[in-house]
Amino acid sequence: MICVLAGGVGAARLLNGLKDVAPPEEITAIVNTGDDAIMHGLYICPDIDTVTYTLAGVNNIETGWGLKGETWQAMESLKKLGGKTWFNLGDRDLATHMYRTDRLSEGAGLKEITAEITSAMGVSVNLLPMTEDQVETKVTLLESNDEISFQEYFVKHRHDISVSAVRFNGSAEAKAAPGVIDAISEAEVVIIAPSNPIVSIAPIFSVSEISDAIKARKKDVVAVSPIIAGAALKGPADRLLNELGHEASVKGVAKYYQEWISTLVIDTADFNTAKDIESLGIDCLVTETVMTDSQIAASLGSTLLGLKK
Amino acid sequence: MICVLAGGVGAARLLNGLKDVAPPEEITAIVNTGDDAIMHGLYICPDIDTVTYTLAGVNNIETGWGLKGETWQAMESLKKLGGKTWFNLGDRDLATHMYRTDRLSEGAGLKEITAEITSAMGVSVNLLPMTEDQVETKVTLLESNDEISFQEYFVKHRHDISVSAVRFNGSAEAKAAPGVIDAISEAEVVIIAPSNPIVSIAPIFSVSEISDAIKARKKDVVAVSPIIAGAALKGPADRLLNELGHEASVKGVAKYYQEWISTLVIDTADFNTAKDIESLGIDCLVTETVMTDSQIAASLGSTLLGLKK
Repeated sequence: MICVLAGGVGAARLLNGLKDVAPPEEITAIVNTGDDAIMHGLYICPDIDTVTYTLAGVNNIETGWGLKGETWQAMESLKKLGGKTWFNLGDRDLATHMYRTDRLSEGAGLKEITAEITSAMGVSVNLLPMTEDQVETKVTLLESNDEISFQEYFVKHRHDISVSAVRFNGSAEAKAAPGVIDAISEAEVVIIAPSNPIVSIAPIFSVSEISDAIKARKKDVVAVSPIIAGAALKGPADRLLNELGHEASVKGVAKYYQEWISTLVIDTADFNTAKDIESLGIDCLVTETVMTDSQIAASLGSTLLGLKK
Repeated sequence: MICVLAGGVGAARLLNGLKDVAPPEEITAIVNTGDDAIMHGLYICPDIDTVTYTLAGVNNIETGWGLKGETWQAMESLKKLGGKTWFNLGDRDLATHMYRTDRLSEGAGLKEITAEITSAMGVSVNLLPMTEDQVETKVTLLESNDEISFQEYFVKHRHDISVSAVRFNGSAEAKAAPGVIDAISEAEVVIIAPSNPIVSIAPIFSVSEISDAIKARKKDVVAVSPIIAGAALKGPADRLLNELGHEASVKGVAKYYQEWISTLVIDTADFNTAKDIESLGIDCLVTETVMTDSQIAASLGSTLLGLKK
């Protein structure tokens, strides 16, 4: 069994690579739900959906979110009504949120609902929400000191605004979703996907049960750095690390994950920093990590699985 | 000022006719909300939407609900996910429900939201929900004795099932929406549209404030019979009248409305029953009421306005 801590796009690509080199049924992804949002009454799980759509092969590669070949009738009509359209929802994507909202109102849990959606879309990788409780990633803006939701930060402000703090509202009371702790305990290797440490992986760690379970597996935990040559491939990981007092470098990532990991995988572009990582007591593996195609993703997956003793 | 008690299609046609013969700003429709439903987390007002879409000229004439030229991407995807699809929601129609749900979550009232939607769609007739409180039309099935929601009865069962009772859950506590009582009190004429007496008009009367206000205007209240020659043009009005112990005839309608009206308008097809109506102490006006085109609707509207002293 392989366990992967996952955010959105980066994790989805890695999971796609892993499922090409290992039976998908043996892969469990524990997915961030701190980004979840209720929009127009619909319950939306952006990271779970990105991973699901990518593994189903129906993701929109150009946008990095949503479905390929999507239509936008609902959004265009909503715009005419003067509704909120900063969070774009395609017509077919809407069905996912409608299904989830309906099942939640019937009392089903997010784990069960996610399994129903992945099954209907032909995804065999096991996706678990990190929690079925409400944990909300909240972002404090530097200038105004306003605290806003993650989606407001990420989508409405296009993460083009300075941040002074990030917290995970509700995490103190949150329990891991059913199956999460077992997936961590029983895995041969626990992989932290190249997702944003601060807003994709830290929300998962904010659930203390999960953090403790990962720490207990530290010698089998390997992270893939989302920072390459000081920059994030996508999104605000570098900027957020900097703004919150970390180093936007593989070393910064190593320090950030130090409590939980024994190995950090870094890109060949950072080969000369391997010693810095090792000086922290963390093994360092240098390989190609930019998953521009499925072969590179599979190769990275293969390398990660090769780390199992 | 003209006040119209309204259900869905029949009322929408009459309102269209009235607005051709009177300034639309001077017409206020008090619309049934007993049919309202929450589907997939979205707050849906079928009667308000039917009236809005019809007055905006964007209604789907073939189906009798929804928008013309609609697309169905969301519903098709929801079907693939195994979701509930018995209540059909077009992609553009979804925007209306998303807008409404969002505004409700922001604390706006249904009256205000309805005004925003009608304004965005260019509708000048003033549409008021009968109440901003929850009143739910509940239907008891004869055979199983199960009590189901109106939409389950009307859409899921296609009203092709015997009914033993209808009640309006919540009506005892419900208040009239802001503006409703004034609209009734200030109108020169109060018109009960040719809507289903039992499931479109009775829910409005179930709010005692409204019922009392209508009774106080009895001499200026005129109903248009939805029953023509013993049958409803559309929907289950005839069947429901029969099943609940009333007569499915213009006389049955006259008796049903006896407390509230002074005049009943019946179709020429029923000209020989005028005396029966008058024997109940209700004035009877015989005219063409089947609004197959806008000219007939306007002519009916004109006749109704001619009843003002």
